[in-house]
Amino acid sequence: MKWQPLFAERTTQMRRSTVRELLKVTAQPGMISFAGGIPAPELFPVPEVAQAAANVLQRRGEQALQYGETEGVAELRDWIAARFSRAHFQVRPENVMIVTGSQQALDLIGKVFLNAGDRVLVENPTYLAMLSAWRPMMPAFVPLPSDTDGLCVDALSPLLRAGAKLIYLVPNFQNPQGITLSLPRRRQLLECINGRRLVPSDVAQTFLSAGSGDIPVPCSKLLATGKRATTSHKPQTIIIEDNPYGELRYSGDPLPHLLELDAANGAGGELETCVIHLGTFSKVLIPGLRVGWVIAPAEVIDKLVQAKQAADLHTSTLCQHVILELIRNGVLERQIPRLREAYGLRRDTMLSALAAHFPDGTTWTRPDGGMFLLVTLPPHIEIGFLLKRALARNVAFVPGDDFHLDGQGRNTLRLNFSNATPERIEEGVKRLGGVLVEMLRTG
Amino acid sequence: MKWQPLFAERTTQMRRSTVRELLKVTAQPGMISFAGGIPAPELFPVPEVAQAAANVLQRRGEQALQYGETEGVAELRDWIAARFSRAHFQVRPENVMIVTGSQQALDLIGKVFLNAGDRVLVENPTYLAMLSAWRPMMPAFVPLPSDTDGLCVDALSPLLRAGAKLIYLVPNFQNPQGITLSLPRRRQLLECINGRRLVPSDVAQTFLSAGSGDIPVPCSKLLATGKRATTSHKPQTIIIEDNPYGELRYSGDPLPHLLELDAANGAGGELETCVIHLGTFSKVLIPGLRVGWVIAPAEVIDKLVQAKQAADLHTSTLCQHVILELIRNGVLERQIPRLREAYGLRRDTMLSALAAHFPDGTTWTRPDGGMFLLVTLPPHIEIGFLLKRALARNVAFVPGDDFHLDGQGRNTLRLNFSNATPERIEEGVKRLGGVLVEMLRTG
Repeated sequence: MKWQPLFAERTTQMRRSTVRELLKVTAQPGMISFAGGIPAPELFPVPEVAQAAANVLQRRGEQALQYGETEGVAELRDWIAARFSRAHFQVRPENVMIVTGSQQALDLIGKVFLNAGDRVLVENPTYLAMLSAWRPMMPAFVPLPSDTDGLCVDALSPLLRAGAKLIYLVPNFQNPQGITLSLPRRRQLLECINGRRLVPSDVAQTFLSAGSGDIPVPCSKLLATGKRATTSHKPQTIIIEDNPYGELRYSGDPLPHLLELDAANGAGGELETCVIHLGTFSKVLIPGLRVGWVIAPAEVIDKLVQAKQAADLHTSTLCQHVILELIRNGVLERQIPRLREAYGLRRDTMLSALAAHFPDGTTWTRPDGGMFLLVTLPPHIEIGFLLKRALARNVAFVPGDDFHLDGQGRNTLRLNFSNATPERIEEGVKRLGGVLVEMLRTG
Repeated sequence: MKWQPLFAERTTQMRRSTVRELLKVTAQPGMISFAGGIPAPELFPVPEVAQAAANVLQRRGEQALQYGETEGVAELRDWIAARFSRAHFQVRPENVMIVTGSQQALDLIGKVFLNAGDRVLVENPTYLAMLSAWRPMMPAFVPLPSDTDGLCVDALSPLLRAGAKLIYLVPNFQNPQGITLSLPRRRQLLECINGRRLVPSDVAQTFLSAGSGDIPVPCSKLLATGKRATTSHKPQTIIIEDNPYGELRYSGDPLPHLLELDAANGAGGELETCVIHLGTFSKVLIPGLRVGWVIAPAEVIDKLVQAKQAADLHTSTLCQHVILELIRNGVLERQIPRLREAYGLRRDTMLSALAAHFPDGTTWTRPDGGMFLLVTLPPHIEIGFLLKRALARNVAFVPGDDFHLDGQGRNTLRLNFSNATPERIEEGVKRLGGVLVEMLRTG
């Protein structure tokens, strides 16, 4: 049977993820892997999970093994709603949906929002698996530049005027760069998206006189008071705030979520915001349970739930109940500082090792948290050859070009610092630096 | 923010599933529910699951909580491959992918195969959540008639000549009718799809002289020997064999899967078949773990894996390891006969209760297994009104029209017999019969 002609047109957009395929190689014993976005397994709270599973099965076994509601287990949605509510707005359970890892949220968002040709603004480089999730919907990705303060919002206004369905951001410790969107940039982004006050080059054209104190007036408040009337004809752009790493901060002060800066409650108490916020228990607790969440206005959640019913009915009830039990037992709140300490040390170790072992002419980002940094090599380095030589010395990394949209990044590599122990990070960076020095000398 | 204009065109095809929404109502205490396709929770092997989870977390906790391969846990794929191999063909691990419930397989198949306008042949009535999964891809569904022997294959030939991308079938104890595709029909279907020997009306036109003994020659064998050459210009049609209930047979003899009748190994040992076979642990073991599988040629699995990477990275590793442990501990093999006995009794109870309490002029199917039967009422009964009156007496069912494609089935209702105990089945059918008799009397 010839299968190729039977595949749908959208499958031409599908490919196996380099990162996930590379993971199979890096699972070999002895390999020091800086490749995956893989948590340190020795830090998993295994006995606590065993206890949680035992409790759940003893106390509500039938419920935890039965089919469940597509929206997710009610008590878990309640907890997330409470955790993301603030003094100036309330998240209700109807604003929360549980998903099978936040990757599923990306898949569902692509299905629910993207027509072929829709413009999607993304940082460049950006998260690879978002591209994989959305490419089959055939949108037009528009790459945006960034610097050490994150996305360069100044570049945004003309693109927004041309119309864009979504803008996708990992504001905290972005994958693959590890950089964080600064607070002024967060405010500027929301003002820009909401058309309240555009960036400097456009100020003259559409400056609106809404008082700009320290805290921006949420867009929904402006909507309610009619202050946005002059720009309401503009096509709306949705912000997808993907926040898998936000809790893993090792230096600097925590910044408010875009959701937090933008959200307000409408007259009926409904959540009003242009932000769809994605979170996950994978990085702070356990990836193998595949439990994440989406926070959004109820109308959006309603549509995402319809898409999820068709996608997998619901996320594992047992996994959701185990997560809930871990939260109730205080394991999550103990695990977060534990990971911050351990991963913070690993980040420091990697930064020191890079300074010690990497040759002149290489640079790297200095993340305040998360799991990754991005190294930029001299432009003439052939990264495929570097990877081959590194693997021969039992060190793995991910070439950076896959994260880039426009053929850029061919001299970059992403290094993960959460998976290997400090000793192995030191050793791996040393080996990698050795290979590099050799290549530069002979190259 | 106005969300409606931002949704993609395909979302007009999405709606909340009546069945899953109805489940929320039926969760009320005191309700006798014939609505969902819900296993009996009191038959879940809860202590065995607790033991399995404890073993897994003790023996390979880090592995069971870590990210895993998109294809699924290797040992589980091995087990499925061995279970579906036969004397005349071997299923290899590369032919098996683990999915987040077999619902996810439907979602992935829709993504990978369906272009807008592709023709999809389906039994009528058919499985509701398949329609939900595929509708957003905007195929053209073509309803096929069926009788007590399952799909009427005679109707198929002209439709196949016109071209069809997929034919979707639940050959065993179909949802919602509970009917089973007979062995002669299975053979006829495969002959028809593979163009080897068409149904009576077409015999004259394209009869091929391949010797027809008891066992049909697998299509791939025919391909290999070139016997199908005369019809090889025909567009190929893929059979989706969805088999969630196959192990739950209470009477009659087990029939071979379509996969089993069709598959062969090619020269390199590759699996060759036009059948994609879907299975799940949800009905025979535990639905809340969300673990199912797909069996298909490696080329198809490869594409489905790409789609799954983008959809949810992988299915919960913990859930897969728990299933594997339950298999190794013999729990699956003990659970299947246990469910057969219990559900068989429930089916018998429902059939007797229907005979005793339902008025003349109503008919119903007599399933040999599975979880459902379909009742047909006199045509003038208003089924929405019946549901309302039934819910008022704490009995729930699903109106049959949602399972139908062409506005048919407005006087049908699906009854589930796996969830309620025999006593409650007797009581519920009695109440439902009482409501019906009343409605017929008052006209």
